[in-house]
Amino acid sequence: MLENSTRTELESIGEFGLIDLLTAHINLHQPSTLKGVGDDAAVINHLNNRTVVSTDLLLEGVHFDLSYFPLKHLGYKAIVVNLSDIYAMNAKPTQVTVSLGLSSKFSLEAVEELYAGMLMACNRYEVDLVGGDTSSSKQGLVISVTALGEVTEEDIVYRSGAKVNDLLCVSGDLGGAYMGFQLLERERRVFLANPEVQPDLEGKDYIVERQLKPEARKDVIKLLKDIGVKPTSMIDVSDGLSSEIMHLCRHSNVGMNVYEDKIPIDPQTYDMARELDLDPTMTALSGGEDYELLFTVDQSDFDKVKNKPDISIIGYVTDASEGIYMTSKSGNKHALKAQGWKAF
Amino acid sequence: MLENSTRTELESIGEFGLIDLLTAHINLHQPSTLKGVGDDAAVINHLNNRTVVSTDLLLEGVHFDLSYFPLKHLGYKAIVVNLSDIYAMNAKPTQVTVSLGLSSKFSLEAVEELYAGMLMACNRYEVDLVGGDTSSSKQGLVISVTALGEVTEEDIVYRSGAKVNDLLCVSGDLGGAYMGFQLLERERRVFLANPEVQPDLEGKDYIVERQLKPEARKDVIKLLKDIGVKPTSMIDVSDGLSSEIMHLCRHSNVGMNVYEDKIPIDPQTYDMARELDLDPTMTALSGGEDYELLFTVDQSDFDKVKNKPDISIIGYVTDASEGIYMTSKSGNKHALKAQGWKAF
Repeated sequence: MLENSTRTELESIGEFGLIDLLTAHINLHQPSTLKGVGDDAAVINHLNNRTVVSTDLLLEGVHFDLSYFPLKHLGYKAIVVNLSDIYAMNAKPTQVTVSLGLSSKFSLEAVEELYAGMLMACNRYEVDLVGGDTSSSKQGLVISVTALGEVTEEDIVYRSGAKVNDLLCVSGDLGGAYMGFQLLERERRVFLANPEVQPDLEGKDYIVERQLKPEARKDVIKLLKDIGVKPTSMIDVSDGLSSEIMHLCRHSNVGMNVYEDKIPIDPQTYDMARELDLDPTMTALSGGEDYELLFTVDQSDFDKVKNKPDISIIGYVTDASEGIYMTSKSGNKHALKAQGWKAF
Repeated sequence: MLENSTRTELESIGEFGLIDLLTAHINLHQPSTLKGVGDDAAVINHLNNRTVVSTDLLLEGVHFDLSYFPLKHLGYKAIVVNLSDIYAMNAKPTQVTVSLGLSSKFSLEAVEELYAGMLMACNRYEVDLVGGDTSSSKQGLVISVTALGEVTEEDIVYRSGAKVNDLLCVSGDLGGAYMGFQLLERERRVFLANPEVQPDLEGKDYIVERQLKPEARKDVIKLLKDIGVKPTSMIDVSDGLSSEIMHLCRHSNVGMNVYEDKIPIDPQTYDMARELDLDPTMTALSGGEDYELLFTVDQSDFDKVKNKPDISIIGYVTDASEGIYMTSKSGNKHALKAQGWKAF
């Protein structure tokens, strides 16, 4: 990687020069990758497994703000959010393709930073970057990632398998990425108002990292396999707990009841929410970008999932006619509402 | 599809409402598609075949101008350019994923037009649209398509298999899409200067269609199979003949000699180039977006490929040390230069 003080204009190296430079550091991990970048298409050998494929689009000004999002982190996150979808199928991610739209404000060094973050994620998750497209953009940075994964017929988990009396579980904790986002936004506004003031992120490293460098729960998929639990349904938490619960209920044609006091929230998330006059539970329900796994398991698996530090049992599955509710700390039942972006 | 006179704001239906509406018309064609849209990832059953995957990013203002590109055509083209990459591996495209970034200037009706064009292409090529992502965009329309295909180990064709004395062939004709683009650009400028003037596209339907509604050469892949010819190397013509020849030479470590008078150019392309004071050969070499197939075949296949209306033999493969040349109509040899975008 070159020093930040150097700036090489992208136009000076051209499309093919850029592709050569970016792809020089790609390592391949998967035996199924027969051909990576460099032809019209990558070639993957999938034997008798199921191939799963998922795609995500990240746009500057919508999904990220480069004024506080380091490019290396952004690259890392762009890969991770796609892998999270593959894990949510109980599958193993194997390959990704990456398309980049780059405006002239980006130097080669900046693009290399972005790509270095992507490759760091690929190496960490042992996923092969096998192709993509680079293009100029008049509209800021555009990142599109497609991930492929594999899974056997017996292991695959859809959103549609939840059944009445199943336990509703979630990995890790929720709301942290959203509180990290709110914190970074606040510090950006402070900085814009007075550039002398340094960002105050002291003691808030966890929620900042949840926003800037999330991880996909490969470890939870492994844990479930190790303890012999196959979820009946699963989804990753990208839009917020409330929205994901609605998805599971809709696809499985069931209702759910979730207990507010069981929703796992980290102390930093809780404190930040209080500091910003927000309800901590709302950050978990509607914040999103946690990339935790929300899943249901059969009641008979209770002993296997209880007391696992990475898994919280937060509710149970009901008949569809009973609706989708949260039981609050005070014992009242509130109907949950769907979220998703409203950014148009 | 609703009438154009109706305008439904995207914000009034939200992300999930939009996804439901757009995906309601998807037909599945491939037995290998076990699960399409609606979960974290699509699920594909690939048995013992190779999976090939290719991806493309199309950005407003860079790859298309909505002032003359009808949205339905744009959707059609966005799919076709990806399928073309799959055919260029001698593979059969089977699934696509589509990510859209939409700014608030697009109504639901506009997005439905775009999507209708995509589904038209999917139906025409019997490809399944199995997933994607929709997002708001502050930057105009963003389209990212990833295509998957399958091919047996014996049939797959890379860019790297060309060998000395192979024949260099191209399907269809070249330069038409670029001349269509130049014509549409000219008429747009005339219209901007004087909105009373109607576009003059009379007798130029072929080159306009080459730009606005290109097709992938599924028929040529079938023809080659029918006549028992397996190309030794292949690529699709997206950046221009010159650039694609360079790719084949580089990946196969060979040289090539192409004859200017063998390059297939349609009369409409030729006339339009002359009208615009351009060299018709240059439109074929550097124009791009033809989505024809450029491939090499063994000399022993000469009798099989000669006299096929859809195939032109335009040159032959030489040792790498002999370089990459075009022999002009006057008999002079010119070194070919790489192209690719210079749009940064």
